[in-house]
Amino acid sequence: MTRVVIIGHESAGFTAACSAKAADRRAEVTVIERRKHPLYHPCGMPFAIGEEIDLKNLIENTRAPNVNLRLGTEAKSIDLTARIVEVTELKSGKTETISYDSLILATGGCPSRPPIPGVDLGGVHVLRTIEDAEAIIEAAKKAKRAVVVGGGTIGVETSAALKRRGLETLLVELMPHVLPTILDQDMAELVVERLQKEEVHVLCSQQLGEIKGKEKVKSVVVGGEEHPADLVVMATGVKPEVKLAEEAGLTLGVTGGIKVDQYLRTNDPYVFAAGDCVETKNLITGKPSLSPLAPIAIKMGRTAGENAVGGKSTFEGISNTVVTSVHELVIASAGVTTEKAEEAGMEVVSSRIRTLNKPSYLPGAKPIYIKLIVEIKERRLVGGQIISTNGVAERVNLLSFVIQKGMRVEELADMEYCYMPALSNTIEPLTIAAEAVLRKL
Amino acid sequence: MTRVVIIGHESAGFTAACSAKAADRRAEVTVIERRKHPLYHPCGMPFAIGEEIDLKNLIENTRAPNVNLRLGTEAKSIDLTARIVEVTELKSGKTETISYDSLILATGGCPSRPPIPGVDLGGVHVLRTIEDAEAIIEAAKKAKRAVVVGGGTIGVETSAALKRRGLETLLVELMPHVLPTILDQDMAELVVERLQKEEVHVLCSQQLGEIKGKEKVKSVVVGGEEHPADLVVMATGVKPEVKLAEEAGLTLGVTGGIKVDQYLRTNDPYVFAAGDCVETKNLITGKPSLSPLAPIAIKMGRTAGENAVGGKSTFEGISNTVVTSVHELVIASAGVTTEKAEEAGMEVVSSRIRTLNKPSYLPGAKPIYIKLIVEIKERRLVGGQIISTNGVAERVNLLSFVIQKGMRVEELADMEYCYMPALSNTIEPLTIAAEAVLRKL
Repeated sequence: MTRVVIIGHESAGFTAACSAKAADRRAEVTVIERRKHPLYHPCGMPFAIGEEIDLKNLIENTRAPNVNLRLGTEAKSIDLTARIVEVTELKSGKTETISYDSLILATGGCPSRPPIPGVDLGGVHVLRTIEDAEAIIEAAKKAKRAVVVGGGTIGVETSAALKRRGLETLLVELMPHVLPTILDQDMAELVVERLQKEEVHVLCSQQLGEIKGKEKVKSVVVGGEEHPADLVVMATGVKPEVKLAEEAGLTLGVTGGIKVDQYLRTNDPYVFAAGDCVETKNLITGKPSLSPLAPIAIKMGRTAGENAVGGKSTFEGISNTVVTSVHELVIASAGVTTEKAEEAGMEVVSSRIRTLNKPSYLPGAKPIYIKLIVEIKERRLVGGQIISTNGVAERVNLLSFVIQKGMRVEELADMEYCYMPALSNTIEPLTIAAEAVLRKL
Repeated sequence: MTRVVIIGHESAGFTAACSAKAADRRAEVTVIERRKHPLYHPCGMPFAIGEEIDLKNLIENTRAPNVNLRLGTEAKSIDLTARIVEVTELKSGKTETISYDSLILATGGCPSRPPIPGVDLGGVHVLRTIEDAEAIIEAAKKAKRAVVVGGGTIGVETSAALKRRGLETLLVELMPHVLPTILDQDMAELVVERLQKEEVHVLCSQQLGEIKGKEKVKSVVVGGEEHPADLVVMATGVKPEVKLAEEAGLTLGVTGGIKVDQYLRTNDPYVFAAGDCVETKNLITGKPSLSPLAPIAIKMGRTAGENAVGGKSTFEGISNTVVTSVHELVIASAGVTTEKAEEAGMEVVSSRIRTLNKPSYLPGAKPIYIKLIVEIKERRLVGGQIISTNGVAERVNLLSFVIQKGMRVEELADMEYCYMPALSNTIEPLTIAAEAVLRKL
């Protein structure tokens, strides 16, 4: 009987528990979780701030069957030699040790708070836990002027949400455009246009210099200019939570995530890791990468769970398949941006098309923008970005599939697709995009 | 300067003209078309009958640039030895001959009217041309009881449309269930349920015996029972229009379509064929097949157009990617049904799942049904069927891609996908479906 201990019960830990039990019914699985509630959906929180979802609905009571879930319990240390985890029950302060045959670290990530003067003032928030979201919602009820720092997915979604609640909202991004890890400049401009249409102010290529105020934030200084603010959300990224791993002596990678092999095994043969705390590989560039995305955490959880009970499942890496939204606009991306491709030394060509998602004679026909990035030598598709009102996520999933399989853009151009005038255009937009980039090759 | 003559100006002929000019600017392209309007969207007609689309909008004035489009002109015969087409201008009756270096037959299909007693009575319609649709719409204004014969996509869409116009509607299908070429019985039942919810009466495994009436239809006899009717639509399939080809001495295939090689060349080296009139190959079974679908006609048109001016483009076959709808329900399929797979001698296993297209806590979360069919020996995905309210067509396109590439179902289970709670579920339904069928392998 294998004793599996899992630290962390979000997407990766929960899936790992289910998967270990599915692979070996006799395994004794214990999950250590600091939170009091079993599961929650962090990706839904910006939409709860925007009052599209009730925050309460983001807390879920799902538990893996026949698993010993220890809520309100914190893992304090790991002894790799003795194979034990020391844990503390948070309410009672009681400490005990739990032995394992296999350990899975699914400790997730924690929001990075850049060391800016004033970052610890009242009214300055991060968004990671349900409690963070509750605090932002409470603060937003009284606040008038919000500043969101960081134009990644969380920052973009949160700024749209705060504006929807009626706050004057400013979004500040250090890079030349929003969503810099998933979009090229020309695609990001469409997102900024949509934000500005809602009167969200956007400042790109601008660094937050200082947060001013006594006890509570009064203003922020961006590029030398002072902007009044009574609510600040720092959406400046997520760092892997690796304190336990590091203190135990496990090896970290260059990105700061826990180093693992394709079986998600760390440098200790009895310890696996899964989810946001792991350093994985970008399948397109081959470079080490972090990936704080729920579907990746689930995939990793499945692999780590199986392998913790003796399986040989592999996780090869990620192609960075991401979707976000601003009001009715859906924005998705797979693979690398032009900048990332060039940084990795690839010679690429790209093309952006605009077409309609239905025949123009139908009510509700909307523009769809598709940008494809192709590596010139092998003609492989390496990146795809789509913006429209619907059919965006599903189409990006197909692009992601083509990218993951290392396929040529001709294979995409040649795809067979279905057609019905009420739903789609006679020529599938993905094939129009593929033909457009082929003409440049 | 190559003289290209194309007979027929729907999806295949129009695309062939564009594609020939794109590949060779100096080519002299002439298109012969019987109709008076340049292009129309036949797939939109059931929706025009149902008053969702204005019929006028289905007529398009698009013309390929720098192409000599001869509307209102009928090709009467082809002399393969002399390489000339004899044409008649329908209005004047004037006849002339046109010489070609390459000829493309894009003559399309014509509705099959089974030789049932009474099939030529007044009030019995087919649906292929704009004039057919006009006649049905006119008749529907006065009619009370409609019978649609044939439960394929056109029959299902037309029966829902006539019911929406307020007619009592009966749909009759010879096979044990509707949409028999694209759905298995269990999936088709969901479509029948939806039709019945709208009070469309559906009779399966029933043959239309006779259409009764004097001059005009009064009733139909189905399985020995008489049903009153004042409007009948025969949606019993489309036959390839091959009269010209046959009379010219070109070889036909076992399906009755024009036989071509992978370059879409007929047995005459100067003659190509594209679209509904062609016999192609089913990529999964390897068997000869017809495919009266616009996206296939477009793909074939592109290939034939390029090759008519000296190209070497290939068209390898079809995987039968189809979408249809009944009210808000979207129904799509790719590859083969269980029955078709077994007929072709494959050993298959299948699994059907039902899940939600969004997290259950979100407004508008709807069921999505996915059935996957997998060939046991190679574990290849050979068929996929999806029914839901949205994201159906795009997901079936991904399944179609996996099927066309001959990929294993594990590769689908392993797909990376994007996630956002407002749009999708944490676990992509396609991967849930893939995991479900994997458990049976």
